[in-house]
Amino acid sequence: MAGALPRSPLAPDRFPDLPAIDGVTFAAAAAGVRYAGRLDVMLAICAPGTKVAGVFTKSATRAAPVLDCQTKLGQPSTAGAAILVNAGNANAFTGRNGTDAVNALVDATAKAADVPANRVFTASTGVIGELLPHDRITAHLSDLVANQSPGTIVDAAAAIMTTDTYAKGATQTVKVGGKAVNIAGIAKGSGMIAPDMATMLVYIFTDAQITQEDLQGLVGTTCDRTFNCVTVDSDTSTSDSLLVAATGASGADVTGNADFADALYAVMLDLAHQVVRDGEGATKFVEIEVTGCTDDGVARTHGLSIANSPLVKTAIAGEDPNWGRVVMAVGKSGAPADRDTLSIWFGDTLVAEDGWVSPTYQEEEAAEHMKGDHIRIRIDCGMGAGKATVWTCDLTHGYIDINADYRS
Amino acid sequence: MAGALPRSPLAPDRFPDLPAIDGVTFAAAAAGVRYAGRLDVMLAICAPGTKVAGVFTKSATRAAPVLDCQTKLGQPSTAGAAILVNAGNANAFTGRNGTDAVNALVDATAKAADVPANRVFTASTGVIGELLPHDRITAHLSDLVANQSPGTIVDAAAAIMTTDTYAKGATQTVKVGGKAVNIAGIAKGSGMIAPDMATMLVYIFTDAQITQEDLQGLVGTTCDRTFNCVTVDSDTSTSDSLLVAATGASGADVTGNADFADALYAVMLDLAHQVVRDGEGATKFVEIEVTGCTDDGVARTHGLSIANSPLVKTAIAGEDPNWGRVVMAVGKSGAPADRDTLSIWFGDTLVAEDGWVSPTYQEEEAAEHMKGDHIRIRIDCGMGAGKATVWTCDLTHGYIDINADYRS
Repeated sequence: MAGALPRSPLAPDRFPDLPAIDGVTFAAAAAGVRYAGRLDVMLAICAPGTKVAGVFTKSATRAAPVLDCQTKLGQPSTAGAAILVNAGNANAFTGRNGTDAVNALVDATAKAADVPANRVFTASTGVIGELLPHDRITAHLSDLVANQSPGTIVDAAAAIMTTDTYAKGATQTVKVGGKAVNIAGIAKGSGMIAPDMATMLVYIFTDAQITQEDLQGLVGTTCDRTFNCVTVDSDTSTSDSLLVAATGASGADVTGNADFADALYAVMLDLAHQVVRDGEGATKFVEIEVTGCTDDGVARTHGLSIANSPLVKTAIAGEDPNWGRVVMAVGKSGAPADRDTLSIWFGDTLVAEDGWVSPTYQEEEAAEHMKGDHIRIRIDCGMGAGKATVWTCDLTHGYIDINADYRS
Repeated sequence: MAGALPRSPLAPDRFPDLPAIDGVTFAAAAAGVRYAGRLDVMLAICAPGTKVAGVFTKSATRAAPVLDCQTKLGQPSTAGAAILVNAGNANAFTGRNGTDAVNALVDATAKAADVPANRVFTASTGVIGELLPHDRITAHLSDLVANQSPGTIVDAAAAIMTTDTYAKGATQTVKVGGKAVNIAGIAKGSGMIAPDMATMLVYIFTDAQITQEDLQGLVGTTCDRTFNCVTVDSDTSTSDSLLVAATGASGADVTGNADFADALYAVMLDLAHQVVRDGEGATKFVEIEVTGCTDDGVARTHGLSIANSPLVKTAIAGEDPNWGRVVMAVGKSGAPADRDTLSIWFGDTLVAEDGWVSPTYQEEEAAEHMKGDHIRIRIDCGMGAGKATVWTCDLTHGYIDINADYRS
């Protein structure tokens, strides 16, 4: 299945050049967890002193590795850390066997990489409900440790893919106190993407120096403005995990530094957009800006209601500036709205205002915008200053093709 | 567009024989509101003394006729009543023009049918955001009044269709106090169907005798167990309306009568199922039974989360007993669930129990069930006695075809 799909038409031209992050090394292997003949396991090892922060799926049926990571994040440590991820099998809804598999992976990784077990973070992505053949992974651990290199993050990005049609990476470099601070991140995800985070795995590495507490706070708020504002199909995975590891090797203290916060935001937004651009069957990248709401939360609710509406998403696939469906989606969101103060734009074209079609509206203009592959929909509720932007993709035959056939 | 689609493979063999309801007459006309050469307006006239109860969409952007009907329901009356419905144009998000159009229709109908204006209930279904050409409708009013007949409810059912592929009707007859009480109902709806009620128009007529207050109470609770338990695409229309008119002509007082309540439930459930069976692109009717929840509301939340999940619906389209996606949908619903007490059945096959695949599970058995066109999914949360059943259909290429092209 994986690798069988053509590269998304919305994909970036190529994988970016990611800088080596001082204090982090990578290796990947083809362990045959489910797929044959491709990288499907990655191991990252971080130097002692690395701080690790994270955000996880809120699913009530979350997978065993997620529960394990959540426990460990609360335990500060000065030891090194290891991140082990496999694709092909999510080790989710596997009962006690799931926990046993996590423990087996953690213990073997701790031993092979010489880090404490409570500093080994694992994740598994792929099919739900089937036993993880963890022996196939642990059989490769000594090679994964022996082959560690600062430059192979691109292999790690490839190894965590499932129905992704391209590997996803992003980077930023900022100067803090005269020192260069690098950030490099990788992600996987294409379907089952919705707040909170849904089938995304994201690993971001930086040589910034920051306390675990400050890092966790920054990662949480930035995630709310990036990964929690993208949606492909409204479905939420049992495995979503975002980890940010800060080695401190740059010697630059970024606590409270706005440039670093902006750079981390840029990396997370870039990765979040790449996930949407790889949405299953996507042919159009859709940006939905909501303004004029009673608060930001209301704006996000309206934005996600529009972004998750099958009728809006199919209209976009059909290049139809069907603003009536946008009105419908605002109405059903459950958040405050007033039909008679609602305005809607497709691209730069004012389509509707004061509860009805704008007198200046020319459908040809909006229709022209819909032919592009970057669709911008803006609504203003005319009720306040609350605002939010969310991103999604269209709903096409490709989505049905992929998901009516995922396990076969 | 309407009429162009092949009849749903899940449709009943034929429109049922509906009994005449003493005190109600019908007529339909081809007014050319949007479609050419088909019935698109219906007028029902109810005798003086008829009680009218109703339930409407909760959309914050609901259409002008819905707002008008909601105002009128609170006004008890001993006068007759008229129900005027058009297809092709929803008169929704049309600003002040929408209200003007409703007033024009109401006034003309009141005059033509000789009923008070506050007893004229209108509804419009079809495209949102375009002005309703109400003159085309009012031009037919005198004919619609002149042609009234007790036997033409089938024409009324045809006139209210939009993307429906077949007209929907249902009936029940019960004996109350030795007298026969008839119930006959019609409905339209195929896409944009979700709680609360979404793009459904439902008109039910009975010769039962009941107070307006008792009728309203019964209709509300029955709607919660029928129309509010079906979903096609989770989208909610701005126009949904359910009206039940009781003429009292049978002379049978049905207040508190369980047989009448059961019969009304059966008619509403039948119509609700017919709407799902006409779900845009549907090839499979899906029944989701949820038991073992902390309360009935939790069970309904889990059921609708499963029923609305694009990943579950595409798996069903692909005849894949992908219970992992059911687990995912339960997890994301936000309602209480415990992974390790969750059991899942496809048809009669126990697939998963105690948080993992059942030791007796044979995928072939479940796969065989998925090949049918009536799919039964059952989950038990193992946490209490709360239960609910919801109904939906699969998500197929047909849905994309219809909705990427609705306005063209």
